[in-house]
Amino acid sequence: MKTSVQVSAQATVYLVGSGPGDPELLTRRAYSLLKSADVVLHDDLVPNSILETIGTAEVVNVGKRCGPKKITQAEINERMIDAALRGLKVVRLKSGDPGIFGRLREEVDALAAAGVSFEVVPGVTAGAAAAASLGVSLTERRFGARVVFVSAHPGHVDAPELQTDWKSLARSDATLVVYMPGHDFSEMQRQLLEAGLDPLTPAAIVSRASTANEQRYIGSVGELHRLPGAKAPAVLLIGRAIERIRKPLPNVAGLRPASQTAESRH
Amino acid sequence: MKTSVQVSAQATVYLVGSGPGDPELLTRRAYSLLKSADVVLHDDLVPNSILETIGTAEVVNVGKRCGPKKITQAEINERMIDAALRGLKVVRLKSGDPGIFGRLREEVDALAAAGVSFEVVPGVTAGAAAAASLGVSLTERRFGARVVFVSAHPGHVDAPELQTDWKSLARSDATLVVYMPGHDFSEMQRQLLEAGLDPLTPAAIVSRASTANEQRYIGSVGELHRLPGAKAPAVLLIGRAIERIRKPLPNVAGLRPASQTAESRH
Repeated sequence: MKTSVQVSAQATVYLVGSGPGDPELLTRRAYSLLKSADVVLHDDLVPNSILETIGTAEVVNVGKRCGPKKITQAEINERMIDAALRGLKVVRLKSGDPGIFGRLREEVDALAAAGVSFEVVPGVTAGAAAAASLGVSLTERRFGARVVFVSAHPGHVDAPELQTDWKSLARSDATLVVYMPGHDFSEMQRQLLEAGLDPLTPAAIVSRASTANEQRYIGSVGELHRLPGAKAPAVLLIGRAIERIRKPLPNVAGLRPASQTAESRH
Repeated sequence: MKTSVQVSAQATVYLVGSGPGDPELLTRRAYSLLKSADVVLHDDLVPNSILETIGTAEVVNVGKRCGPKKITQAEINERMIDAALRGLKVVRLKSGDPGIFGRLREEVDALAAAGVSFEVVPGVTAGAAAAASLGVSLTERRFGARVVFVSAHPGHVDAPELQTDWKSLARSDATLVVYMPGHDFSEMQRQLLEAGLDPLTPAAIVSRASTANEQRYIGSVGELHRLPGAKAPAVLLIGRAIERIRKPLPNVAGLRPASQTAESRH
């Protein structure tokens, strides 16, 4: 038995990105940590196919709801720290990349304050996976050299004045990648159009990118108010860089999930 | 021997992100494709430690220079297509994520025009790896919900008017991730400060993130003109979200590579 002093000196929590959902898109590092962990604390959005790669670890869902009881951030922090100080190998598994809308900061600060070492293992972010699924690049040299990752979820900022100002994002030289876009894009659309963005600018929603349940809806900014909301995790892509996936404007009925073999891939 | 018709029907090129440099940060999909490929065409920036994971494939460096001869984009396209039509399993290996400043579009268009199928395998982008190495998050709810990936390399746009307008990026609610930042940050600094960005806004350069040769320089926007250029691939991070790595302002001599065990990790 190690003493608690020895154990504490080695206590480490691995804050690991699960990638977009496909277990094949886990990094090799994430995969081996999941295999060797003693405890895995995971978010709601991590799919079963990834949880199935976990070895013998105790698996705890610390997502918004766990049974009838809501787990607070303070409780998540406490569980991570307690397990690490007991000498267990702890993986905190987060959807996508932990540093992109992953609420990493709160946990890193808590670990540091408790004297627990940590390692952040980056992952493939949902926006990159969505673009890959569509066969497009987020950057395109004909249009500009800028990609903006924004979140439409109010939980990603602390104060109302930090809510996304869509008008400032209406640039023809940028690609927008909207995380947690929700189900109603009409306000976003209104602001983008008011600020001068061309209504024909391509837009696409990709839900559960990289998984067997992936869905894609392809349209334009002018059609945003008609695009369906999609199951989480989803991202909304907007910009001329993704235009290769466009066909002539479909009518309303034409707003459809793209087939698995999109025309861009023939 | 398969006939060329049969082969052509199956011809596929895998456009694969290598991630930031650590072979452990390859996705499982990238790793298995590298093991099973017949031909791997790779960029200059993919390190040897990743090339060593390749199985029995023929390995071709199609980076800017290959011996004394410069390889053009048209030649790269031709090599990919020829190999695929010959029935070989072709991996086109790109540093980071292929859709983020990876010049993916040119190759996808050429493959589509030649009737060759393709699959894009996303990877961990250098900016995510740099933040992970620093133990910070690119997003922080106290400051905003926006991360901007920009390139400072003129080759990433076709026309001078598309060059990055740094003034438009001077926002206190955004994190900037500058790819290929070069070695002279004085013009970028001048524009950011002129547009009102606080000179105390944290800035960090991470070179070869995730590898044994990683280097980090930590400073502020006010010190950008003094930050050293770093070996490629490098990213420059700017924003309040990364401020946890800051100590009280160092003097000039204090601009130093961060130690492997940064204070943020104790």
